[in-house]
Amino acid sequence: MKGKIYCIGTGPGKDDLISERALKAIEKSDVIAGYGVYTDLIAHLIKDKELIVTPMKQEKSRCEKALEKAEEGKTVSLISSGDAGVYGMAGLLIETAEKSDVEVEVIPGISAVLAAAAKLGAPLTHDFAVISLSDLLTPWEKIEKRLIAAADAEFIIAVYNPSSKKRADYLKRACEIISPYINENTLCGYVRNCEREQEEKGILLFKELKDFQADMFTLIIIGNSTTKLIKNQMVTPRGYKGL
Amino acid sequence: MKGKIYCIGTGPGKDDLISERALKAIEKSDVIAGYGVYTDLIAHLIKDKELIVTPMKQEKSRCEKALEKAEEGKTVSLISSGDAGVYGMAGLLIETAEKSDVEVEVIPGISAVLAAAAKLGAPLTHDFAVISLSDLLTPWEKIEKRLIAAADAEFIIAVYNPSSKKRADYLKRACEIISPYINENTLCGYVRNCEREQEEKGILLFKELKDFQADMFTLIIIGNSTTKLIKNQMVTPRGYKGL
Repeated sequence: MKGKIYCIGTGPGKDDLISERALKAIEKSDVIAGYGVYTDLIAHLIKDKELIVTPMKQEKSRCEKALEKAEEGKTVSLISSGDAGVYGMAGLLIETAEKSDVEVEVIPGISAVLAAAAKLGAPLTHDFAVISLSDLLTPWEKIEKRLIAAADAEFIIAVYNPSSKKRADYLKRACEIISPYINENTLCGYVRNCEREQEEKGILLFKELKDFQADMFTLIIIGNSTTKLIKNQMVTPRGYKGL
Repeated sequence: MKGKIYCIGTGPGKDDLISERALKAIEKSDVIAGYGVYTDLIAHLIKDKELIVTPMKQEKSRCEKALEKAEEGKTVSLISSGDAGVYGMAGLLIETAEKSDVEVEVIPGISAVLAAAAKLGAPLTHDFAVISLSDLLTPWEKIEKRLIAAADAEFIIAVYNPSSKKRADYLKRACEIISPYINENTLCGYVRNCEREQEEKGILLFKELKDFQADMFTLIIIGNSTTKLIKNQMVTPRGYKGL
C-alpha cells in the first residue's frame, strides 16, 4: 500500500500559529522531512518520529527521500516554514512525485508575509505583490522587471529574501531601481525573525530603506502612496479617498 | 481600565485552519464583532458571547461598535475570514481606534489565496500579485493598470472578488485587458467556497477563463508561462529552467 505525503506550512515559527490540520498531519506521520532550521522550530512536536533532515540547496533530494518513504507505505510530512506554497516545497514535491502513485496533500499555513504584516499593523489591506530578491533560481532582469511593474502600478510590495551574505547589496539595488516610481517618504516596514526569538520590527521611510541592513530572515513591506502611520502601526487604507 | 481588541483572521472556513492564537483570543473575549457570514462559520465557538453583527458595507460602524465595547473595558474580537489584513478589517479598525487608548492586536490567519492555492496544488510557488476586481473602493482604471503590470511582468495573479451580481462581467473584462500579455494556454485555477460547504475547484486554460462563471466566493489564480499540470494539480516551478 502506498503511503501519503503531507506538504505542510507550519507558519512563521510559534506553535500557536500552526493550524490544527497541520498538527494532526504531523501527529499521524511516521516520517518528518525538512530543512534543519524548520524542523528545529517544531522539535518538541516530532520527537519519536523518523527524521529526514537535509541542508539548504538539497531540496530536491529531500523530496526524493520523502517520496521513497511514502512509496514504502509510510505517512510522511514534508515541512516548510510559513506556507509551503509560497517559496516553499509544495511545487517541487508535486513535481518529484509526478510518476508515483503517492498522494500529495498540501496543507496551507500562515506565510511570513502575513505574519509580518500583522506585526506591523495592516500594511497589506490593498492589492499587493510578493517578490523574492533571490536570483539563485530567477534571473535578476526578471526580478527588476517585476519590481518596476509593481512599483509603477502602486502595489504594496512584500520583499522576501531582501539580502544575504552573498547578496549584501540586493535590497539597495532594488530600492534604486524602483526609486523613480515611489515617493521617498513612502512608509516601509521590516520584521526580522518574525514570531521567533530575537524578533525585531520597525517602520522607516522609503528613502532610508536602501541603507537598511536586512538579512535572509527579514521581510520588508513597501507601502503605497496611501500607507500611513497610526500609533506606530503601518496602515494602508482599503479605499482611495481623494487619490 | 481600557479593554483590548483582537483583529482576527479565522482562515477560510474550517475550524482546523484557525490558529490556536486566534482561538484563544476568541475564548478570552467578552464580545465578538463580525459580518454575519463569518460569525456563522464560527458560531459554535462563540456561544455565550455578546455579539455585534453588522451587514456588509457597514464595516465602519462595526469597528466603532467594537471600539465602544473595548472603551468600556471589555475584551473584543473583531472577526474577518481569511487573514484580517488581506482585504479584511485590520486597517479600518486601526484607523477607527486612532484617537483611543484601546490596544489593537492583529492576529494573522490563512488567507483565501493561500487556502485556494493549496487546494489547487502549488500555483503560487513564484512571485505573485494579489488583486481585487471590486471597484467599490478603488477606481477601475487603477485595477486595470495593476492587472496589466502584473501580467506583463509575469507575476502569478490571484484575483479576489472576480465577480458579483452587480459586476457580472468583471472577470471577462479583466481577461480581455490582460490577454495581450498572457498566452491563451496558460493554466488558471478556481476554487469556490474554499474550505466551506459545496466547495468546488477546477483548472482551465486562460482562453476559457473569460467565459467562466465566477461569483464573490470564488478565488481565481492565473498562472505564469511556466505553470504546468501535474496529476490534476497546478504547479508553478520555483526555478526558470530554459525560460
